[in-house]
Formats: sequence, C-alpha cells, structure tokens
Amino acid sequence: MERLPRQMNDNSLPISIQPIAIARATDEPDVMVIEVKPEFGEALLLIEEQKHLLVLYWMHRLTESDRATLQVHPRGDMSVPLHGVFATHSPGRPNPIGVTRVELIKVEGNTLFVRGLDAFDGAPIIDIKSG
Amino acid sequence: MERLPRQMNDNSLPISIQPIAIARATDEPDVMVIEVKPEFGEALLLIEEQKHLLVLYWMHRLTESDRATLQVHPRGDMSVPLHGVFATHSPGRPNPIGVTRVELIKVEGNTLFVRGLDAFDGAPIIDIKSG
Repeated sequence: MERLPRQMNDNSLPISIQPIAIARATDEPDVMVIEVKPEFGEALLLIEEQKHLLVLYWMHRLTESDRATLQVHPRGDMSVPLHGVFATHSPGRPNPIGVTRVELIKVEGNTLFVRGLDAFDGAPIIDIKSG
Repeated sequence: MERLPRQMNDNSLPISIQPIAIARATDEPDVMVIEVKPEFGEALLLIEEQKHLLVLYWMHRLTESDRATLQVHPRGDMSVPLHGVFATHSPGRPNPIGVTRVELIKVEGNTLFVRGLDAFDGAPIIDIKSG
C-alpha cells in the first residue's frame, strides 16, 4: 500500500455526515423501525434478502460534556479502574457512533422493522450494511 | 422507551465528526499503525488490556460520485442483480464509514499497532471501541 504525502490527508478538517434515516421506537419492546429518507430509498433494493444488518447511528442525546469525557469507570463500576473510552464500549466518546447488529424482521416501503437496535427513539441513522 | 416530540430530533442537520486519529501503512503487510491525536491520548488508558478493537474509519479516497451511488452489483459481479448499497458491504455509500475488528498487537505512547485494518494509508479514524 503506497504512502501518500501527508498534505493530501488533512485530518484536521471535520467530516460532515448526513443522516440517511431515523430510528423510531415501537409498542413492541426490542423492536424499532428505521425510517429511511425517501432520497435514499433506492439504496434498499433487495435488502429483504438480509437476515441481519449492521446499523451505525448517532447517539444524539449525548451532550458536549459527554463527548469531552475521555476516561470512565467501565459500566459505571467504581471498583474498576478508570479506562480510556477507546478501551471501552462507553457511549460517551468524542464521536458517539453506535454500531449494532440487528435482526431484520420485515421491510415495508422505506421502513425497516428491526430487532435488537439499542438506539434511543429519534436517533439519526448514518449507515446500514449487510450484517 | 418514550417517544420524543419530532421537533427535538432534527434529522436534516449534518453531523460534524472530528477525526481522532489517522491510519498509516507499515512495511509489514496487514499491519497498520493508528496514530491517535495527542489531545485524545487520555482516551487510550489501559487499552493494552484489549486483544481486539473495533475501529471506525472514514473512507477518505471515495469521491462525491461514489457517495452518490445507491445501487451496485455486489463485489462488482455483473451476474448478480443490482442491490441497494444498504443491502451490501460496498464501500461506496452516502456516509462511507468502514467498521473493522482488528487485533491489537502493541501500544507505544499514542500509537496503536494493529493487524487486519482494511483502511487505506491516511484514512481518518473516527472511533475506537473495545472489540
């Protein structure tokens, strides 16, 4: 793999991400719907073939303070030593992106019914992959 | 899970992500280094305990055209019907974020040596989780 000149990889710039869908709670525990925006509907072609999907979502309820937290006691257990957030699954981290493998229950138009998505109602979905 | 009023979840706004590290190729095939920015060094505390990490990175070489591609023949095989990109692992997608589970080989200061990261040299790293 070639090494590119450093000036071609300006890592100081923020990356802009456009949500492609929104997660919504349902009356059934553990089941959520993913409402894909109409402009991305074509990206769902044949998705019903998939039994599982990998869903990336934005933890939109976290505050700037949560994003500034760099060390935590894992699972809030004070008997466990402080760990850096990159050594944990803590939601609070500089870029709070959740990654969850979900079961695809059914597809209705641009709406996916999934089981196991651990997002909050209203969470912006930023990517969906075969899982 | 309560349902929030829609106006609290404005999904039309882009999300801004600040890279926390950069991926660099090494002379050894399949081994890359992740150079974590100094300001996020504290988030690495005790990461050497982890054997595997989940790494999220930005596929920075993709073009706007790649990001606009919504349907592909999986793995470029024209004998397979067109699929929506959300039903595939195709790199081209609206928000081209790669998710890879890697082996953590060693840690030197803010530099992680990892095996199995399928990123290009120079790729911005946007999150690291225990894996």
